[in-house]
Amino acid sequence: MTTPQKLTGEGRANALAALAKEGWREAENRDAITKRFEFDDFNDAFGWMTRVALVAEHMNHHPEWFNVYKTVEVTLTTHDVDGISNLDVALASKMDRFARGA
Amino acid sequence: MTTPQKLTGEGRANALAALAKEGWREAENRDAITKRFEFDDFNDAFGWMTRVALVAEHMNHHPEWFNVYKTVEVTLTTHDVDGISNLDVALASKMDRFARGA
Repeated sequence: MTTPQKLTGEGRANALAALAKEGWREAENRDAITKRFEFDDFNDAFGWMTRVALVAEHMNHHPEWFNVYKTVEVTLTTHDVDGISNLDVALASKMDRFARGA
Repeated sequence: MTTPQKLTGEGRANALAALAKEGWREAENRDAITKRFEFDDFNDAFGWMTRVALVAEHMNHHPEWFNVYKTVEVTLTTHDVDGISNLDVALASKMDRFARGA
């Protein structure tokens, strides 16, 4: 398991800019990132969640997520650093990749 | 797939009373039922979600649910009848049974 490192300064700005291109935005009332994923149907959405769950468990870093049928709203933050860490960026990247079917 | 039947009158009251004993309550701003499930850890929570997902897909009746680590907050309602139906009661019952490990 990787120890989380809080993102700050330029590293944080660059990471958030890259994530923004994939549709991630900063949460409004918390130091977190959020994205709404939309899939074809529940099978597609929950299949994606299952792939993400396996990775999250392996990382010991878990998302907050809300699923209604074919949509999943995700929030990522790292309690141990009270903000956004490299683990959030890594998990976001996996989520994007899986959502592309890769 | 079962056609949903909206619960009304005495049948609804009896169903909600039975569900209340299992920790379900009526949602505040919608005609829906809600319950917060708490598990041992993420593995336990997502394993339960997976069992529920298979049943939900088979019923073609899906929950709204929010997962953070070991907790899952569920809301059940039936859009086709604009309220609580027999399908919500059936899915709630499955959720409770799976949460007991049965």
